[in-house]
Amino acid sequence: MKTLHMTRQLQRCKNKRFELYAITRIIHKVDDLDIKFITQQYVARPDGFALTDLYLPQLKLHIEIDEGFHKQQVDADKVRELDIITATDHQVKRIDASVAIEQINLQVDQIVAEILQSVEVQKAAGNFQAWDPETEHSVSYLQSRGVIRASENVALRTSAEVCNLLGHNYKGWQRSSASVPHYPNIRLWFPKLYPNEQWFNHISYDGCEIHEYCIESETKKRQFIDKNLSENIQQMVFARVKDELGQTMYRFKGLFILDRDKTCHESGVYWKRVATEFELGLT
Amino acid sequence: MKTLHMTRQLQRCKNKRFELYAITRIIHKVDDLDIKFITQQYVARPDGFALTDLYLPQLKLHIEIDEGFHKQQVDADKVRELDIITATDHQVKRIDASVAIEQINLQVDQIVAEILQSVEVQKAAGNFQAWDPETEHSVSYLQSRGVIRASENVALRTSAEVCNLLGHNYKGWQRSSASVPHYPNIRLWFPKLYPNEQWFNHISYDGCEIHEYCIESETKKRQFIDKNLSENIQQMVFARVKDELGQTMYRFKGLFILDRDKTCHESGVYWKRVATEFELGLT
Repeated sequence: MKTLHMTRQLQRCKNKRFELYAITRIIHKVDDLDIKFITQQYVARPDGFALTDLYLPQLKLHIEIDEGFHKQQVDADKVRELDIITATDHQVKRIDASVAIEQINLQVDQIVAEILQSVEVQKAAGNFQAWDPETEHSVSYLQSRGVIRASENVALRTSAEVCNLLGHNYKGWQRSSASVPHYPNIRLWFPKLYPNEQWFNHISYDGCEIHEYCIESETKKRQFIDKNLSENIQQMVFARVKDELGQTMYRFKGLFILDRDKTCHESGVYWKRVATEFELGLT
Repeated sequence: MKTLHMTRQLQRCKNKRFELYAITRIIHKVDDLDIKFITQQYVARPDGFALTDLYLPQLKLHIEIDEGFHKQQVDADKVRELDIITATDHQVKRIDASVAIEQINLQVDQIVAEILQSVEVQKAAGNFQAWDPETEHSVSYLQSRGVIRASENVALRTSAEVCNLLGHNYKGWQRSSASVPHYPNIRLWFPKLYPNEQWFNHISYDGCEIHEYCIESETKKRQFIDKNLSENIQQMVFARVKDELGQTMYRFKGLFILDRDKTCHESGVYWKRVATEFELGLT
């Protein structure tokens, strides 16, 4: 698992040679298979999407290799299926790669020292969670932690696993929503958070608002809006995404309630985020 | 110069992810800009051409990353312009990349330790020549060494520089051969050692024999053979090649004399190698 991940991650940097040089140096100098590296992570920023060159989820750290030309804006349409993380509390470090290789090496080695120190700090505080591809997306591991947080890369491979995390015992699950045992007012929702055949769905770049309406017919659109206005439901959102290697995942985005001020027949349903973590106590 | 070289070398491994992972680990763990690395070096072997994954010319060491499938034979036609080195006295180490990443790391780290030790041995013996892209292909550097050896990657960027290495003082040189001051029986030759418009040229895989004849006309072919049979010339061969980054170079292949047993009107001129090094004493 780690072999596949590590080698594929490097291969993704192949188009930019300074990025490839600097990123491989960071990874081989850190030289710790307990630390997860993701190359080319999409992140949502207040003004749109961005692609960071290297992302260390355990440290919430992004590293940008600046090759000396302006970075292309990411085309939102091309990435809508992808796993786009909210990086509001993340740190970004930059490496200027437009200099001589000795200076690139010095910058990389400085960042490597900082990474190793951050890991030591986490370990001393008992917060370090070693990267384990076998368990990071497993129900039992997430249950053992007791709480899920949108900021902690919570994701499962299937919607049935999400149901089971919340107390069900399903072998499979085909629908786009599900109940939550012990929480009659909470509904699990597995949306594609981008326009698709039947639905206009959109999540704001800051992750705080989801806009949703049916595009099949005006009647269905109105019925759906009326139904939601008549209920008083919290939606626990696990968005369907593709991870960086192309596999489907369901990523926790938080708990949302209906925004009754904005929701109307003309523009559709608006959901606003009310929590980014959830205690699994009763499940 | 080193920046360009190092980053371009890594970029050339992009198609094979285990090779990319292992090679970047070797380079970043050795972490010494005095050591030259060449990715994908063509070498001539008794049975044909081969491509090695990583080549350290100062150590005459090749490293092969075995990804667990049979390596393609190199198509001789595609590489004929390239810089193909003779690797008879070179060492080859292999890394089995079909295993888990922890085992790849162990193998790489073992090879890195061996590389560092070999460098220490060379340094202790006073034989280590730090990689310097500014001087490695310079006339004055080669003159300062006093002797040129085919086994030591002797190459210059232009044929005028080759002439000047042998004692001329030319600004440019357009012809495919030149005299050598103080050595009336030696002729500098700058052949393309592969069939081209006017000449059939071929060097044997072991570098010991060059076969040459004119393909323009039967008359010219005979005249050329008769002229060589009437002379008693040693040819100092600097073959015109493209280096691994696509630049033209003239690489020293040794001193050759006419093979009077094999040379005839039917098959053309054969040159056999009589020396692989030359003292620059008189130049």
